[in-house]
Parts: sequence; structure tokens; C-alpha cells
Amino acid sequence: MTICIGYGAQEAHAALEPLSFERRALRDDDVAIDIAYCGVCHSDMHYVHNDWNSTRFPCVPGHEIVGQVTAVGPAVTRHRVGDRVAVGCMVDSCQHCDACEAHQEPHCSHGMTPTYNGLDRISGTVNYGGYAQHIVVREQFVLRMPEALDPRFAGPLLCAGITVWTPLREHGVKAGTRLAVVGLGGLGHMAVKLGGALGAEVTVITTSPGKADDARALGAHHVLLSTDPQAMKDAASSFELILDTIPRKHNVNPYLMLLGRHGKLVLVGALEPLEPIHGALLAINNRSIAGSLIGGLAQTQELLDFCAEHQVLPDCEMIRIQDINTAFERMEKNDVKYRFVIDMASLKEEGGA
Amino acid sequence: MTICIGYGAQEAHAALEPLSFERRALRDDDVAIDIAYCGVCHSDMHYVHNDWNSTRFPCVPGHEIVGQVTAVGPAVTRHRVGDRVAVGCMVDSCQHCDACEAHQEPHCSHGMTPTYNGLDRISGTVNYGGYAQHIVVREQFVLRMPEALDPRFAGPLLCAGITVWTPLREHGVKAGTRLAVVGLGGLGHMAVKLGGALGAEVTVITTSPGKADDARALGAHHVLLSTDPQAMKDAASSFELILDTIPRKHNVNPYLMLLGRHGKLVLVGALEPLEPIHGALLAINNRSIAGSLIGGLAQTQELLDFCAEHQVLPDCEMIRIQDINTAFERMEKNDVKYRFVIDMASLKEEGGA
Repeated sequence: MTICIGYGAQEAHAALEPLSFERRALRDDDVAIDIAYCGVCHSDMHYVHNDWNSTRFPCVPGHEIVGQVTAVGPAVTRHRVGDRVAVGCMVDSCQHCDACEAHQEPHCSHGMTPTYNGLDRISGTVNYGGYAQHIVVREQFVLRMPEALDPRFAGPLLCAGITVWTPLREHGVKAGTRLAVVGLGGLGHMAVKLGGALGAEVTVITTSPGKADDARALGAHHVLLSTDPQAMKDAASSFELILDTIPRKHNVNPYLMLLGRHGKLVLVGALEPLEPIHGALLAINNRSIAGSLIGGLAQTQELLDFCAEHQVLPDCEMIRIQDINTAFERMEKNDVKYRFVIDMASLKEEGGA
Repeated sequence: MTICIGYGAQEAHAALEPLSFERRALRDDDVAIDIAYCGVCHSDMHYVHNDWNSTRFPCVPGHEIVGQVTAVGPAVTRHRVGDRVAVGCMVDSCQHCDACEAHQEPHCSHGMTPTYNGLDRISGTVNYGGYAQHIVVREQFVLRMPEALDPRFAGPLLCAGITVWTPLREHGVKAGTRLAVVGLGGLGHMAVKLGGALGAEVTVITTSPGKADDARALGAHHVLLSTDPQAMKDAASSFELILDTIPRKHNVNPYLMLLGRHGKLVLVGALEPLEPIHGALLAINNRSIAGSLIGGLAQTQELLDFCAEHQVLPDCEMIRIQDINTAFERMEKNDVKYRFVIDMASLKEEGGA
């Protein structure tokens, strides 16, 4: 057992503040990691605010973790001390159900263990995330960081990145695929970059004319203003896949109309009830609407390797841990292009802990 | 040009009554068909009632047509006088767009021509359906009736049958597929029979305990009462495909919960706005919800051939054309197991025309 310093919330809506907590002693198949960088995800904010009525306090968030191995248990074979590694949204699963055997750990039929606010499968104690000095994780859930991937910017690949990578891969995006991305935040901007790197013809659909330049700068080939009825009409039935990253209740019907034959709209943001969907819009062109969670470990590793090879990285704004509460406030106003990453070295600074 | 006697409605909500109208003279690639039987579809009733505000009166419905060729145009190569043939929901399409070239004529990008209440692509005149003595149809849209298929019962395959066959085939239903069918009407009872003939393990989901025996008689292996919370909970995440045949606005969320990993719910009934769908229910298990129209000509021919080979036929109640208004009233009360078919010989009887 080790004492760890991190930033957490003591109760719902409380500001994040320095606190100390225990990390478990290394088990045989565990890896201890010094955390260098941790991305800031919208769900971190939702957990801290207890928006889903499921937060266990104190809550130390963070599941876009990049760091270096400092110790390994005696049975560990995949990682060595000194390796650069990454940890995403999950740290364990049953490893023997159909989903786990199919490398789809997020769908583990016994429930995967999230990186924070989860219960350890052995001790039953609450676990804590990556806004902290270090973490202990079962080796299967520790990913290799390719040499060529800049560790400062890799964090957001572990959640924002894999959330869009999974549907891009599952739905077979390849050279020439007519792909649209709705919303240009943490997820949306990764979808534009990754879709483009896979060779897709990428259109960003947005309500804001002001985002057109940003979209093109990220690599979008086209921008479609959803507030322009004629442009929307002209684009009817033209896309094969739409990734809808809007993170709240909304009306998907205008987007459904844009899907061609057997086209799919994949929701990667909204987890609440949508506005009513018109059955006829699904029937025309045999369209569908799908949900998608993060991807499995193998697919996440594939993403890291792909991003290293193609030099695809999130656009990040680096912050000190002392600025996390301001960062949360700015995130609520969408005032970030496109993801905050915490430089954990700041924990050692004055006021850090 | 030939005069044809049929049954039609002169205005919205009027009773169907005998009327005479013109069929076009045979074009080079046309086939003239004496109609022996015509199935009665829910959409016939919707058109007669002008429920979709798109009916052109007078309206002669009917798009589940079985008959015999009486004449062919000089360029016709597929059919000969005397052949037993069938006509379904469409009688023309552009034949050169992507969809048509992919044998997906219902999705023709210039719009397929429906069998009635459509406009002929050449003359621009309104066309009339199968509640009539005879019909003239472009040869490509005339299907072969296999010898082994009982013509009295084949009609409903042309709409109810193909509407469920298409998603069964598109979603790869095969031996052992865990398939559920919601609703046990014209479409639902065909889904049970066809799913079973493909080897699927078929569950009927119903609100009525009274339908359990009917479902089993049709070949369902299991019956799940959607009103039984414990049974629904036990069935969570257990199906690969759900065909939802409920023909009106409803709540699909309880059914979504029953889908396993990458499971799909296909709507084949409801064409109106659904009750709000929970995004989280789609995200869990990466589920999806799809729409589906009728199938293309090749797939419809495949269905007829499959049904002949496996002796799968709809359960029909044969009626005289004089009883069509009573049949509509009974259909509105779901008082039919499971499809009415009109014996067109009755047109020649007293009171027939």
C-alpha cells in the first residue's frame, strides 16, 4: 500500500483540491506507473458533479493517463520498469466472458471496472483515477506507448480518440468513405483527424459558420451548415456514416435525412433520451442509428500504433493541476480547442499538493 | 387501352365499391396479367382512408397480386402467355441509378413507382392496383411464381413476406440466430415462419398471454411476455436481432434492452415518430436500430423460391371482393389470422361488379 497525492472532490459540486489516498500494493500481475500527463474528459466533470447520481466521494477523476512504469509484479510479462505506457477508461474486466474473449472488454458481461469510481474486483474498494502522482493497474489493461507518439498529447486518445476510432473501424471507414462528423469538440475533432487519416472524405456538420475555418484546419474537406435548409436539402442521402458527437439530448432527424442507402448514424455523445426519431426516416434508404462505447484493449492499442505511424494527435491545451477547476468551467462553455491535458509535474509545484 | 373492373374508393373514407377504369395498352416490354388472388395489406386501408394525405382518388388498392399471363408485348423475354406470375409493391423504377443497379429498386434514387397511387413513368397517369380483374406491368417487375407455391396463399409474400425477409437476409439470420419478433400480425407471423425456416431460434415478444399458443403454433420456440418485468429482465442482452412489427408509435426502449452485443432492432412497421430512445441503451452493447423497406426484385424472387422449396406460406383467410369493407373493419381490430386474401373469381359473381 502506498500513499498517493492527487486532486479530487470531497463531495458533489465541490472544487477539486489536493488530497491523499491509498494505492494498493502491487499484486503479481500489477504494474505501477508514474503519471506524466492526464487528459481531462467531460465525464470527469460529470462524475465530480455527481450528474449521474453514481459518484463515490471522495472522487479522483482521470482516465486518459500517460506515464512510465516504475515497478512490476513478479508475474508481469508485458511491461518493464522504464517503459512508457498508457491507461484508458478501464482497468479490469472478467477476462473470460464472450465479450472479453472477443477483445470487447467494455462490454464484459460482468461489467468492466472503470479507471475511477469503480470497485476493485478483488478487494472491493473504490478506485481512483489519473489526476494523481501514480497508479497501479493490472498489466493486461496497461497499453504500450509507441516511441513515435508524443506523450504530452497522447492522453486524449485513450478516451476521446478510442470513442470515435471504434465506430470508424467497426463501420469500415476507408479511402473515399463519405463521412460526416456532427459537433467539433474533443470527440469531433478526433473524428475529423482520424477519419481523414483513414482516407475518408470528411464533412463537418455544424450550426456555427465560425467553426468552418477550424474544421478545415483540422483537415475537413467540406463544412455543412445545419442551419442552411438548402445546403441540408442538397446533402440529402449523401453520407455513408455520420458520427454524432453532440453530448446531450438533441434531434437526430435532420442528420438521418443525410444518410444514403444503408447509411448509419453513430451516437458517441448523447447518453440520454433523444428527441423522437421518425420511423419513416429510418425506413427510407434502410438507415440505422447505432450507439457505441469505447473500444477494447486491442483496438485501443491499434489506435495508439496508428496515431504514431500517421502522426495523428489531439489538439491539446496543457494546464497545471492547480488550474483544473478553471478548466472545468471553461469546458462547460466549450472554451477549449479541443482537450485539456494536465501536466502532472505541476503536482510537485508550490500549491500543487 | 382496356377497360378493367375493380373495387376502389371514390374519396377518403368512402367504402370500396365496384368501379371501372382504364389499363394501358401493352407496351413492347409489358405483360398483361389476369389477377387470380390479391392480398389485403394494412397500407391499402391507409391509402383508402387517405391517412398519409397522399391518396389520389379514385383509389384502387392491392399490391399482393398473383395471376396468370394473358398477353405479352413483342420485346418480352421473361414471361409467356399462361405463366403463373406475381406482382408486389412496385411496378417500375429508373433501372439505371446505383440502387437499381444493386437490385435495390425500392431505394431507386428517382423514386420507384408503386403498384397503385403512383404515376406511370411514361404517360404520367395515375395507376391502379390489384383489387381488379387484370393489370399491365413492365416485365422486369413481374415475378415468376414457382410451381410448388400454392397461388391462393402466395399473395401476402409480396409485401408482408418480403418486408420481413429483407432484414432477415440483410442481417444474416441463419441456423441458431437468436431472433425475436415483436407483434404477431401479418408481418410478425411471416417473420416467425421465415426466421424458423432459416434455422433461427425464434422468440415471440407479446403483451398478450393469449397469443402464446398462436405463436407456438406458428413455430416460435419461445414466448416472452413484455408485461412480465422479471421475464424481461432475465432476457436482457440475449437477442441478436429483433424484428419489431408494431405498426404505430411505441416505446422501443424495453426491446433495446434485450439486444446483446452489436444486436440490432429492425423497425418494419412504425413509420411515424417513435417515443424517445435512450442514447445509453444504444451505447451499451453497441446496439442499433434500423429501418427497412420492402426488398428488391431479386430478393423477392429469392423469397418466392425459398417459400416454394420450404413450403412456407402465410396463414390466410380467403374472402370475396364483396366482403372487402368488412375485412378492413376487422383488420382495424386485428381480427384476422393473419392476412386476408381476395379470391378475384368473386368479381364475376352477383354483386361483384
